[in-house]
Parts: sequence; C-alpha cells; structure tokens
Amino acid sequence: MCFDVSPFGALLSDSQLFEAKFDELVAELIERDLKDPGLVDALNRHREVLVYNVPGGKKNRGLSVIGSLRELLPPSQLTQDVVERALVVGWCIELLQAYFLVADDIMDASVTRRGQPCWFRKEGVGLDAINDSFFLESALYRLLRKYCRDQPYYVHLLEVFTETTFQTVLGQTLDLMTAPPGDVDLSRFSMEKYKTIVKYKTAYYSFYLPVAAAMYMAGITNEVEHSHAKEILLEMGEFFQIQDDFLDCFGDPAVTGKIGTDIQDNKCSWLVVKALEVMSPEQRAVLEACYGRKDDASVEKVKALYKSLQMQTLYHKYEEESYQRLQKLIARCAVTLPSTVFLNFANKIYKRNK
Amino acid sequence: MCFDVSPFGALLSDSQLFEAKFDELVAELIERDLKDPGLVDALNRHREVLVYNVPGGKKNRGLSVIGSLRELLPPSQLTQDVVERALVVGWCIELLQAYFLVADDIMDASVTRRGQPCWFRKEGVGLDAINDSFFLESALYRLLRKYCRDQPYYVHLLEVFTETTFQTVLGQTLDLMTAPPGDVDLSRFSMEKYKTIVKYKTAYYSFYLPVAAAMYMAGITNEVEHSHAKEILLEMGEFFQIQDDFLDCFGDPAVTGKIGTDIQDNKCSWLVVKALEVMSPEQRAVLEACYGRKDDASVEKVKALYKSLQMQTLYHKYEEESYQRLQKLIARCAVTLPSTVFLNFANKIYKRNK
Repeated sequence: MCFDVSPFGALLSDSQLFEAKFDELVAELIERDLKDPGLVDALNRHREVLVYNVPGGKKNRGLSVIGSLRELLPPSQLTQDVVERALVVGWCIELLQAYFLVADDIMDASVTRRGQPCWFRKEGVGLDAINDSFFLESALYRLLRKYCRDQPYYVHLLEVFTETTFQTVLGQTLDLMTAPPGDVDLSRFSMEKYKTIVKYKTAYYSFYLPVAAAMYMAGITNEVEHSHAKEILLEMGEFFQIQDDFLDCFGDPAVTGKIGTDIQDNKCSWLVVKALEVMSPEQRAVLEACYGRKDDASVEKVKALYKSLQMQTLYHKYEEESYQRLQKLIARCAVTLPSTVFLNFANKIYKRNK
Repeated sequence: MCFDVSPFGALLSDSQLFEAKFDELVAELIERDLKDPGLVDALNRHREVLVYNVPGGKKNRGLSVIGSLRELLPPSQLTQDVVERALVVGWCIELLQAYFLVADDIMDASVTRRGQPCWFRKEGVGLDAINDSFFLESALYRLLRKYCRDQPYYVHLLEVFTETTFQTVLGQTLDLMTAPPGDVDLSRFSMEKYKTIVKYKTAYYSFYLPVAAAMYMAGITNEVEHSHAKEILLEMGEFFQIQDDFLDCFGDPAVTGKIGTDIQDNKCSWLVVKALEVMSPEQRAVLEACYGRKDDASVEKVKALYKSLQMQTLYHKYEEESYQRLQKLIARCAVTLPSTVFLNFANKIYKRNK
C-alpha cells in the first residue's frame, strides 16, 4: 500500500487519494468550465450522469495507473503533480469504462449494474442514455487536455485512449454477433472466437491501457517495451475473464457479491466453450436444449452437465498453466521494465475467489 | 470549382476526388489494418456500417476542409499529399457526423435518414446500432493517426475533434431536455435556449470544425485567429439552422427533397420560438393545443397561425440582418485570414431554397 500526505497531514492511501479526486474532477468538468447560462440544465444532467455511472465500481483499472507509475518511477520523481496526473488518468480509464457499460447495458437489456438499476432504466432516462454515454467519453478527453496538455506524453495518451476505444468496440461488435441476447446458436461458439472477444472487449482496456498510460507518463515510449507489456497484460486479461466466467457459475455468491446469469443470458463463457470441446453428441443435445433459457430446471441441467464434465478440474488446470505461462512471459519480456509492475497485478488476480 | 489531375490525366473536381477517396478509406480501415482471422465477421459488419451510414449526405462539411485549405495555402503548397490529407480529414468530419446521426435517430425514434431507413431500423440491427455508432467515431481517430501522425498539426486535430465532440454532445443533451420527443411543453422554449442548442449541437461541428481543421493544416494555430474564425462561423451556423427550420415549413418539397415534420415532432424550431415571442395569449392557446401533434388538422392550424403572424416576413427580415451582420464580422475579423474562406461559405448558404 502506498501513502501520500493530505493537506491535513494525515497519510492517505492511493485508494483514498483516488476517491477524493473524483469530486474535484466533477467540479472541474461541470462548474469551472463553462460560463454560458444557457447550459445550466445540460451541465446538471452531466453531473448526474457522472455521479451515477462512474464511481461505483471496484476501480482496479483506475488505480492501476498510479500503482504502476509507483513501480516505474523512483520516489523522488513522484511529486504531488505527477501523482495528481496519474489519479486523473486513472479516472479517465474509469470514464472510458462507464462509456462502454452504460451502452452495453442498453444493448444487453440488463437490469442492474453495480447494485443499482442500470442508468437507462431510471425514470426519465431511457434511450437518452446513449447521449449520456457519449458525454462520458468526451469528458475523458477534456480531463486529459486540462491536466496533461503540457506534458511530453500528451499525444501518446490521446493515441492509446483512442486506439483502445477502437479495440473495445471491435470486441463488442464480435461479442454481439457471436452471442446475440436471446438467439441461442452454440455453433457460433469456439475457443478461438472466445479468446478474440476477450482480448478485444476486455483485456486491452482493463489491463494494457492502465499500464501503457503509466509507461508513457514515465517516459517509456519504446515500441518493443510496449509490445512486451502488451503481451503479458493481454495474457493476464484473458486469464482474468476466464476466472470471471468460472466464478459466475462456481463462485460463492456470499463472497463474489453477485448471482451469476451467464447460462440464462446465453453468454459466450469459457465454461460453455470449453465444455463444447470435450462433450459427447448426447451431452451437446442436452446443452442445446437448455443453454440460454431462464427457467431454473434448464439452468440446473447445464450446471449438472458442467459438473459431470469436471469443469472445475479443467478450470484449475487452466489456471495453473496460465500462471506458469505468465511467470515465464514476465521473466522473458520484462527485461527493462521492473517485473513488479506485472507481478503486483498477477498476485491480485490469481487464486482470487471474488 | 477546383480541379486536380487523376492518374489517367482527366481533371477531377474536389467533389469527385472526395467521393473517390471514400472506398480507399474503407479498404484502409477494414482490409489492410487487421490480420487476426477471428475478426473477419466483425470487420465485415464495420464495412457495412461505414457504407450505409457515411457517404449518403450532401458532404458539404467534409468538402469544406479541402475548400478552405485551397483559400489558405498558395497553390504551390497544395501538393498531392496535402490534398489527400485534406480529403481524409474531410471524411473524418463525415464520420463524426455519422456517429451522431446514427445515435440521434435511435433517440428520436426516427424512421428515415437520407432517403433510406435509419440504420437501427434495418433487420437484425436494432440497438446494436449504438455500438456501430461508437465504431464510426473510433474510425476517425484511426484515419487521423494513419494519415496525419507525422504532421505538426496532428495534436491540434485530435484536440479540435475531441472538443467539438463534447460541444455537440452538450447541444444534444440540451435539445433532449428542451424538446423531449412526445412531451410538449412550450414553456421550455425560448430564443436564448434555441440559440444555445443550435450553437452547440450544429454550428461547432458543421461550420467551425471544417475550417478550424483546415487552418491547423495550413499552420495557423494562433488563438486570436481561431476565435475570430469561430465567431464568424458560429454566426453562419446559426443562420444556416434558422434557414433549415424555415424551409422545413415553408420550403417547396419539390426543391428541398424532403417533407418537413418539425411541427409534428415537437421540434424547438426557430419558427415556434419566434412565434412565441410575438403571439397573443389567444394564439398561444391554439399553438399549445396543436403543436407536436401528428394529425393534419393540427399541423394545418399551426401553419395558418405562422402565416397570420407573418413568419415569412419576419424570417426574411432576420435573413437580411444576419447577412449584413456577417459581412461586418468578416470585414472586421478576417484581417489576417483571407475573407474568401468565409465568403465562399456565406454565398453557398444565404438565399438558398433547398
């Protein structure tokens, strides 16, 4: 855990500093920016959109920027300004995520998100949430401009954010085509497609983006180092998603805090893709009849099938292999980068149960 | 009209060069960029999104980039590369517009756009169109990167595109709050609000953006010159929208090519806002009863009211005043910039009837 000194002399963790920064950024975006009185209503709406949709998550992605930067720079270079900018860039990643989540929830017809109704389900919002999601994205570029414009890495941040946005959109396109909500067709699922979706839809923005941003902020622009970091972080991202898919079905809701619905929602989950690889034609017929259905009996039949296929064992085998592969990748790739950047990450996600 | 030489020696207008560039950009975005075989389906979808939603408009915004650049640079500096980049940046503006239009059509529950069904109405598209709109935006940053990365004005283009996106979103937010489809409340309408909506939702991206982009490409980064250009172009944008609102009701469909529905759609149009300023309480009661209704009788009553209030005369008075104001602004502001940049624009839009 890293600490900094607050204006009142108390030591604050990165997590506390990060939380505290949010209100300041909202004020920055809403109050200090625009003087036009004709915009008051619109800005109040924007404030509501920010407060409802941005800060309610685990914030691991946003916190990774300052976390990684602390590994990449010596303490003497971690001035208050540098730390502040890393917190801001962290919130930019949370804004990018909010942009995608608000929209994904509409497309997936989701009901809740982070323990509250999805934004578009709120009274009076509806499809106007599309424009609200646009706002969330545009806010991140305003923050980058305000805080990082004079930094030598500004253009690199602009590029890594726009590139990552494209990659995430590509992943979402493929996901929507492979597992359209309410249209079950298991022949569309394959391990190759699964891995492509995870890489583009999740791993780039959740794993590569925060570390890449910190690398640019630390002055590391070398393409070889970035491609090494990318290789490691995309592998981690893939593992993280597979684990998430596993916990959706086999996790303890008392620990994970959520009740999984991947089976009901016809999700292209690692479990179903892996099961398809190892099952008999008879078992496949059962899966075809039950996957993507809402009734408890169908869900239980799928779970029983997973158990008879020993999916838990297959998962733990995969987890162990992935961990070993990653350690090797880190040892091989992280020659100039401190391996702690990656190991800290790895230790947070492997063997988690929530 | 400006001409260039094609590979076959024929003279091509900017408009023809611009058209021809589109297919090349689609190929660039779809074929040359990504080798991953797992992405083929997603990329085919992206191609379809581009072809359906980007090239079908009048393309005035996109063409303004090369048009303005020809006024700002001497012919000797307009090399083939410079022209090519101006065409690409022009298409980036058309991509930005497509991003907004695809989403606006969903939020407004529109039926047709540019003479074909709105994208989200197409079989099998639906709300996945939200992700398609995200793709259209992200494509523009890929093109800027590919074609302009090594140019000194690259970061300026990134900033003017992200800033303009924010302004347009802000305008759309205000528009959705002022005139929610299907919820008639004329007390929300005012000339001040009307002008704010037009400025943010339309004028920035349609008028300032293309000229600002051309100015940056010509090496003009001076803030004073940009703020002068902005003042002129936002005034033009306001006039353009007011004219559009006027033609929606009083234009000849045989000339404009479209049948207006602003009255039925409860639009915050210049006509209704101006009429509210000059009407009696009795006339207002008629308007309250008839505005935003689909039946012909109600629409005809609103039109009769506009006629009895002499809206045509009021409009022509406004048109003349705006034209004079603009000529003065151009004379005063365009001291270092060639006034032809602005006059060419002005001559295209004033006194148009379609």
